[in-house]
Amino acid sequence: MERPRHQGMVKNTYMRWRLPLVCLLWEVAMIVLFGVFVRFSPEADAHWEEEKREMNLTSDIENDFYFRYPSFQDVHVMIFVGFGFLMTFLKRYGFGAVGFNFLLAAFGIQWALLMQGWFHSFKSGKILIGVENLINADFCVGSVCIAFGAILGKTSPIQLLVMTLFQVTLFAVNEYILLNLLHVKDAGGSMTIHTFGAYFGLMVTRILYRPNLEQSKDKQGSVYHSDLFAMIGTLYLWMYWPSFNSAISEHGDAQHRAAINTYCSLAACVLTTMAFSSMLQKKGKLDMVHIQNATLAGGVAVGTSAEMMLTPYGSLIVGFICGIVSTVGYVYLTPFLESRLHIQDTCGIHNLHAMPGLIGGIVGAITAAAATEDVYGKEGFIKAFDFTGTYQTRTPSVQGGFQAAGIVVSLLMALAGGALVGAILKLPVWGDAAAENCFEDDI
Amino acid sequence: MERPRHQGMVKNTYMRWRLPLVCLLWEVAMIVLFGVFVRFSPEADAHWEEEKREMNLTSDIENDFYFRYPSFQDVHVMIFVGFGFLMTFLKRYGFGAVGFNFLLAAFGIQWALLMQGWFHSFKSGKILIGVENLINADFCVGSVCIAFGAILGKTSPIQLLVMTLFQVTLFAVNEYILLNLLHVKDAGGSMTIHTFGAYFGLMVTRILYRPNLEQSKDKQGSVYHSDLFAMIGTLYLWMYWPSFNSAISEHGDAQHRAAINTYCSLAACVLTTMAFSSMLQKKGKLDMVHIQNATLAGGVAVGTSAEMMLTPYGSLIVGFICGIVSTVGYVYLTPFLESRLHIQDTCGIHNLHAMPGLIGGIVGAITAAAATEDVYGKEGFIKAFDFTGTYQTRTPSVQGGFQAAGIVVSLLMALAGGALVGAILKLPVWGDAAAENCFEDDI
Amino acid sequence: MERPRHQGMVKNTYMRWRLPLVCLLWEVAMIVLFGVFVRFSPEADAHWEEEKREMNLTSDIENDFYFRYPSFQDVHVMIFVGFGFLMTFLKRYGFGAVGFNFLLAAFGIQWALLMQGWFHSFKSGKILIGVENLINADFCVGSVCIAFGAILGKTSPIQLLVMTLFQVTLFAVNEYILLNLLHVKDAGGSMTIHTFGAYFGLMVTRILYRPNLEQSKDKQGSVYHSDLFAMIGTLYLWMYWPSFNSAISEHGDAQHRAAINTYCSLAACVLTTMAFSSMLQKKGKLDMVHIQNATLAGGVAVGTSAEMMLTPYGSLIVGFICGIVSTVGYVYLTPFLESRLHIQDTCGIHNLHAMPGLIGGIVGAITAAAATEDVYGKEGFIKAFDFTGTYQTRTPSVQGGFQAAGIVVSLLMALAGGALVGAILKLPVWGDAAAENCFEDDI
Repeated sequence: MERPRHQGMVKNTYMRWRLPLVCLLWEVAMIVLFGVFVRFSPEADAHWEEEKREMNLTSDIENDFYFRYPSFQDVHVMIFVGFGFLMTFLKRYGFGAVGFNFLLAAFGIQWALLMQGWFHSFKSGKILIGVENLINADFCVGSVCIAFGAILGKTSPIQLLVMTLFQVTLFAVNEYILLNLLHVKDAGGSMTIHTFGAYFGLMVTRILYRPNLEQSKDKQGSVYHSDLFAMIGTLYLWMYWPSFNSAISEHGDAQHRAAINTYCSLAACVLTTMAFSSMLQKKGKLDMVHIQNATLAGGVAVGTSAEMMLTPYGSLIVGFICGIVSTVGYVYLTPFLESRLHIQDTCGIHNLHAMPGLIGGIVGAITAAAATEDVYGKEGFIKAFDFTGTYQTRTPSVQGGFQAAGIVVSLLMALAGGALVGAILKLPVWGDAAAENCFEDDI
Repeated sequence: MERPRHQGMVKNTYMRWRLPLVCLLWEVAMIVLFGVFVRFSPEADAHWEEEKREMNLTSDIENDFYFRYPSFQDVHVMIFVGFGFLMTFLKRYGFGAVGFNFLLAAFGIQWALLMQGWFHSFKSGKILIGVENLINADFCVGSVCIAFGAILGKTSPIQLLVMTLFQVTLFAVNEYILLNLLHVKDAGGSMTIHTFGAYFGLMVTRILYRPNLEQSKDKQGSVYHSDLFAMIGTLYLWMYWPSFNSAISEHGDAQHRAAINTYCSLAACVLTTMAFSSMLQKKGKLDMVHIQNATLAGGVAVGTSAEMMLTPYGSLIVGFICGIVSTVGYVYLTPFLESRLHIQDTCGIHNLHAMPGLIGGIVGAITAAAATEDVYGKEGFIKAFDFTGTYQTRTPSVQGGFQAAGIVVSLLMALAGGALVGAILKLPVWGDAAAENCFEDDI
Repeated sequence: MERPRHQGMVKNTYMRWRLPLVCLLWEVAMIVLFGVFVRFSPEADAHWEEEKREMNLTSDIENDFYFRYPSFQDVHVMIFVGFGFLMTFLKRYGFGAVGFNFLLAAFGIQWALLMQGWFHSFKSGKILIGVENLINADFCVGSVCIAFGAILGKTSPIQLLVMTLFQVTLFAVNEYILLNLLHVKDAGGSMTIHTFGAYFGLMVTRILYRPNLEQSKDKQGSVYHSDLFAMIGTLYLWMYWPSFNSAISEHGDAQHRAAINTYCSLAACVLTTMAFSSMLQKKGKLDMVHIQNATLAGGVAVGTSAEMMLTPYGSLIVGFICGIVSTVGYVYLTPFLESRLHIQDTCGIHNLHAMPGLIGGIVGAITAAAATEDVYGKEGFIKAFDFTGTYQTRTPSVQGGFQAAGIVVSLLMALAGGALVGAILKLPVWGDAAAENCFEDDI
């Protein structure tokens, strides 16, 4: 790893003082803002005994902690190990992938707790956080990790931190529009996390287009062991995806159902991925990139509908389709995007998150529009779509329309936001990485 | 990884169209069968609010999801990461081990949901699935992963899929005979999963015996990093085994007890494995193969009895014995099986699953036969062995006899089934791997 | 790995018969002691149905198993995969790190169940164990894993087992003094686990000082893949630390709060670690050792106070400080300790556990002293500090004083115990590793 390097380049890229300064200043800002705004939710506060009496709860086990903590930990593993190791396939950038993912996620979750808190958990001047907020912060950062996949190996850590700051902010705004203004359901985040994160990242990488990146083409390959590390990422994402899609669903049947639907969709997705990978490759061999990525598309695509009565066979169908779409995307679409549209998508997030995210939004809209009281039961129907208060009179087909609107809003927010942030990242102040340095570990 | 190869061989082994065709057709069949048969269990269905009232439950936390989901995720990790990575020790076959394990498990769980569903969760024409079905499907596939260990590196993916189809079917039949007809207890599957899976796999590998496999002996070795990857598999299996053995036990004390017994047995097993590994090796060094495998035998061997009142010291004794038996097996029995009986057991599943599985069945029979109302309490006694209805008058010693019968049935089903499936796999239509290609990653 | 070696050296180090003998004899002793003393706790015993009636519990979900099992499994992963893989960074000792960690932890948990059981779960002549005992045993062994980090690569397996035996014993005594005699709160073990374990290990390595270890300096380095393996350890420790600190807290709000505080502290710690790592290195690059270790200091340092009303911003401040202290320690203190004090601290546990552990104790004392009924609520105040019975009249400031005393006791016990055990380990009977063999895998 010790190779002679141009001094100037090093200065330009890492800038001894800039990264420390940004990290320290931002962390100080977090402390101040947390000091002013963030407190414990009643279920995490020492006043819980009184709260329990008021809520007429008889046992500590009814604390939200026990409903959601196991899922939270699974989601946490997905963000830090799953996304981190999924990106270790580059032969010389494994440590950068895991390390920078760690840095941006650790920063992002703090900022997300604030941004999402102001929108969703703000009570009498304070943000009250509990385990559900932690899950939502992880979700929000998940969308940044997705975007990171598009620009992997081509940006400096400061650029990543700047992107995280802006993307988390826009994520929270978009999420507020969808969940609160449009009253859309999106428990597993097909729209808010995947569609938004992926198109945001694709737009950023388009703006940061480097025509002479061809010269480091050889470093974009993988080696034997880097592929096994990447499989660790893949498998943890695949195994824990049922937790991801069910983590913030309603207590009881909704969480239960979301896990089952996701399990089914993912299983089907593996088979069609393998089938198309073998079919489209020379000599019928399997391509590791497809196995590492396209097998996960089934989880993305039931993100919106997993908590609905999609039914196990519906989930299989969604997984079936997405394994095909995603694999075909890797074979035909990624080269096209790069050569024609100048979108250099290192990890192929267009195939794993963007298209399956859109499909997930559409499946969600259809499933919502097709809902009936017969299928859900009278109470279940109201509970599943939260048709109470202002939304008491909303019909399934209207809900389906709003769900569809949610897709469009997420897409537009992502493209506009990505363009803006891409332009900001082009400012020379952040210290861009030189093209010949791309895809190289150097930390 | 780019080496010149004979074109004919490639055609023979991977067959551009056969793998895709099998995957796609089978997945379509799954969708159709799921569409006809599979629906949500009442606890995962949107009618849950009504169900809750009927069952007189006051809180969503009493949904089976919260009793079993954390254990389910641990089991899920064992199947996909545990078994997958345990088999990465081969220096040139790491990706094949993880990748094919992924493929067969993803297919297997779907077919297992159907097969086990018809036998155990079939109500008015529908299979109603919940989290317990997901665990059972993972368990069933676990037995296929075990059998995969015997033939690792020597079969084509299509052969694996065919084996999975048949093995899952026979597993479900054997499980039905044991649990429903013999009314046997086997929560951790010493008999149904390990004994059945291992002898099935050993029989298959016997039938597929390749006399000229000696020539690829050098590829059967491990290298430094492949051994560390294998340790990831070992540790996840070891750590999560208490979840495996307790996942489908009765709510409350039985789950609690099963986890404790398994924890104790595994801890003891590590010490005797290390002792005998060091004692039997030249120069007293430890053998990595033993550490990777024999340390797990203690989990296998309390599979049947973990939920019974085996007591912590009973568990230590079982673990103590199994560490020895398994390690001695690796040193003396595996070479004997290969040279004399022509059983080429790549991962040594005879030592890790077959013998400890039999021991587990026997320990279960003894523990059941020794049960008294004094030790279990009046209610606990009935609950532990489900001595209700038709079985109201069954005594512990009779139960012990049935448990013993369960071992014999599992063994016979495995040997007969393995012989049958081995013969089917020999059909040239599946595209056997050439001997010189064995233990080589080529996907 | 096949190099010519001196026969004598091999004999000296591994001694064909000594390791097996020690393992077997100790395991037999465990079986006898478990047989005499260890039984199931009422919540894991088949009499649970009667127990439930007596405790007036209406549902199986109120079994302690469901409150703590998910956290237990996370802690279990931290001990075996987290600590094991964190120590794989040495380029030629990865297997030794994971393997010996596995051996000592498996032995340690059995002995810890007994030692802690006699002190805390002893009822009418029997130790009654449940899931909380398993967690505490894992915690106790965690402190041994920490000490192992200081002597990594420099000791024989027998020495490690002897150290484990003594350290677990002293741990239990120290824990008893703190929790029962001083009535100190230390749920995440800043004092009992980290301060004690780290200073114990540092003292042992000081006593075992090898002046000519310089010659194997080159083996102390890491290589690319060994660093990625170490990151697996880091991330699992980092992600699951909220479970570690909340695992044995009171049911309900305390567990909930402990997880949130730890999550916040760890997030802040990552940013200051990255900042100072970049600032203190030549050319502003990040140092992998810091990222692998100092990022975890935030979890150590809220160990005592996490279950108190530290508040999220308080946690951020603690994490902020510890990232700095730990990173600075790696850069300046470790070389100083080695050259001046002859403390060869292989993994830098002084920076990751010792200093943050002390900080954690102090933060705990301050947080306890600052507690008011206003912040905690009347009931919450009593519950949080267990101000009942003999301690009914203890005030927060007195509690703070006792907490501070707990730090001092832990420190003294660690130093005295470490000196004693170090002296014992110097006895030639255990077979010391030759200096030229250090940091080499040879099992």
